[in-house]
Amino acid sequence: MLDIIRDTLGAIKSISPLRLKNAQAHLDSLTKPPGSLGLLEDLAKKYVAIRDTDHPSISKKAVIVFTADHGVTEEGISAYPAEVTPQMVQNFLDGGAAINVLARQQNAEVLIVDMGVNHLFAPHPDLLDRKIAFGTRNMAKEPAMTRAEAEESIAIGIQIAAQLAVKGVDLLATGEMGIGNTTASSAIFSVLGNLPANQVTGRGTGIDDTALNKKISVIQKALEIHSPNPEDPIDILAKVGGFEIGGIMGLLLGASAKNIPVVIDGLISSAGASLAIKLNPSVKDYIFPSHRSVEPGQKVFFDLMETPPLFDLKMRLGEGTGAVLAFGMIEASVKIFNEMATFQSAGISDRAKIQRFP
Amino acid sequence: MLDIIRDTLGAIKSISPLRLKNAQAHLDSLTKPPGSLGLLEDLAKKYVAIRDTDHPSISKKAVIVFTADHGVTEEGISAYPAEVTPQMVQNFLDGGAAINVLARQQNAEVLIVDMGVNHLFAPHPDLLDRKIAFGTRNMAKEPAMTRAEAEESIAIGIQIAAQLAVKGVDLLATGEMGIGNTTASSAIFSVLGNLPANQVTGRGTGIDDTALNKKISVIQKALEIHSPNPEDPIDILAKVGGFEIGGIMGLLLGASAKNIPVVIDGLISSAGASLAIKLNPSVKDYIFPSHRSVEPGQKVFFDLMETPPLFDLKMRLGEGTGAVLAFGMIEASVKIFNEMATFQSAGISDRAKIQRFP
Repeated sequence: MLDIIRDTLGAIKSISPLRLKNAQAHLDSLTKPPGSLGLLEDLAKKYVAIRDTDHPSISKKAVIVFTADHGVTEEGISAYPAEVTPQMVQNFLDGGAAINVLARQQNAEVLIVDMGVNHLFAPHPDLLDRKIAFGTRNMAKEPAMTRAEAEESIAIGIQIAAQLAVKGVDLLATGEMGIGNTTASSAIFSVLGNLPANQVTGRGTGIDDTALNKKISVIQKALEIHSPNPEDPIDILAKVGGFEIGGIMGLLLGASAKNIPVVIDGLISSAGASLAIKLNPSVKDYIFPSHRSVEPGQKVFFDLMETPPLFDLKMRLGEGTGAVLAFGMIEASVKIFNEMATFQSAGISDRAKIQRFP
Repeated sequence: MLDIIRDTLGAIKSISPLRLKNAQAHLDSLTKPPGSLGLLEDLAKKYVAIRDTDHPSISKKAVIVFTADHGVTEEGISAYPAEVTPQMVQNFLDGGAAINVLARQQNAEVLIVDMGVNHLFAPHPDLLDRKIAFGTRNMAKEPAMTRAEAEESIAIGIQIAAQLAVKGVDLLATGEMGIGNTTASSAIFSVLGNLPANQVTGRGTGIDDTALNKKISVIQKALEIHSPNPEDPIDILAKVGGFEIGGIMGLLLGASAKNIPVVIDGLISSAGASLAIKLNPSVKDYIFPSHRSVEPGQKVFFDLMETPPLFDLKMRLGEGTGAVLAFGMIEASVKIFNEMATFQSAGISDRAKIQRFP
């Protein structure tokens, strides 16, 4: 294993139970019935504990969109041709995609990382060129990448997290683009969840029944040929993953080591997050799930997290769109923590002080 | 029935199916797989149809917090004493409550309406004095209000909506405060849903089993004594409702007549909305549900709406907190509608144009 990965895994600590407890005590002093803000209180507590501070704030937010192509697209498992990956990357750089719109609303930076798109892009201030290859190999025929390439993709994610930490980013979201990457993600979830391909495979960008059956059989075949080791996340990534999924894994490891919370988007981000959790379960402490995708494989991630999603809007776009929508809720929770009056400061009768019913 | 109520009911029109269809066609031209933004697309379509425009925008938002006291609190059905109603109203005016924090985040105005709080407040720019009485009567002994008072409360809500329309408000949320008002709302839902009190009654601000049983029996008794007519929403409001619930009803009627969408908060707002829908089913077209409260009675509202909530954060605070959280999602949907590139403008391969798989 590359030193940077080993060192980062060693630097990840569980969040402090004392911070969580003190944060709940503060929330209980605010002018509302205890617990009445539900999961919003959980978000605030977790954010405070991750940042390891009594005075949480969110000022710099970013969504990191990892992009790459997939050799498996030649099997005909997507509703769109592979050329859409670079076209959509250009759309991100031009500011016209859904993730651009939603990130602008949330005042969040969008950083596009070329992990392995089958195209050479002109330099652009929002584009980070970390191309490992012009796409993965076709998992239906050979492993998607070598173990060295898999480790490199993780290392890239770790380095990006470290750079964002230096810039003072408070809150991250994962995003991705890569035609064919729901196939890779479903394969990963089949291994991690020990579930047959048909239980973790969905329609991605919107394929019909014929293509769905093809997609399922491609995943089954790839898993039979390569037999990824369920206890070795890097082996899974190499054999049936994608460069962007490795980038997401690395971002999570690096962010966890730097006390930066990461909001997880849909199926592909959840696959990367699940692999990262398998490498170090404490990564869970730094993850905020966002939405429930319509893709069935994502349930393996929620089972691992033991946390439900914040919302279920029947979305299936990726790019980080669901994760960035959750920024608003996490910020709301931190503002509640910081700005609400206490029972004492507002002079309000706390039920602890009143007589019980006559 | 007061003329203003009758006239407003007559002015409410269903939204245009053509607007909805054209909005979907526009959404399908944007650079994403058709339907891949799920409910976000539904929000955009509905907003466009309500505002009856090709160029939707959201610039002025407001949450209207209707407040009132409830005679039924003397039965001991709440975890907090009735004096907390005016104390919390003061907290709203001082900017220290959860709704103030969340409305500030969303850049939304907070308007507090005193519909019948048992306290005389000093004038304040954010407070509208529409006091009908110093609280309702105890529904366990007599009708909560007269039919004239019930109509007056609805008329007040209608007038407020009309004033907000003149001010150019684009998006409204309902909120409320009133110790005892989950009891009134559960009673309303028992009638509207034709369900026994124990199936629609929850713990409100957090009562124990003894108080919960008391609350259920008080609701049962009130419904037995007064037999509200399930087909007459004003009769239900008068006998077991509250002034703030009437205000919410009226706001919805008035906003619907003025093409202003209204986001509905939790149990109490849902009770007011359900009564408004019973008065004119087209009101549904102007409603955005927000969150699923932990209070069980709210399911009657979702059944009436035939629409699921946007999120379920296990909240039970009221004040409009859940509704204002949904502002961000509705705005996101409108920005998606307005700001995303189309397949054509971005030069991206639409799947309609590509050959199917080899």
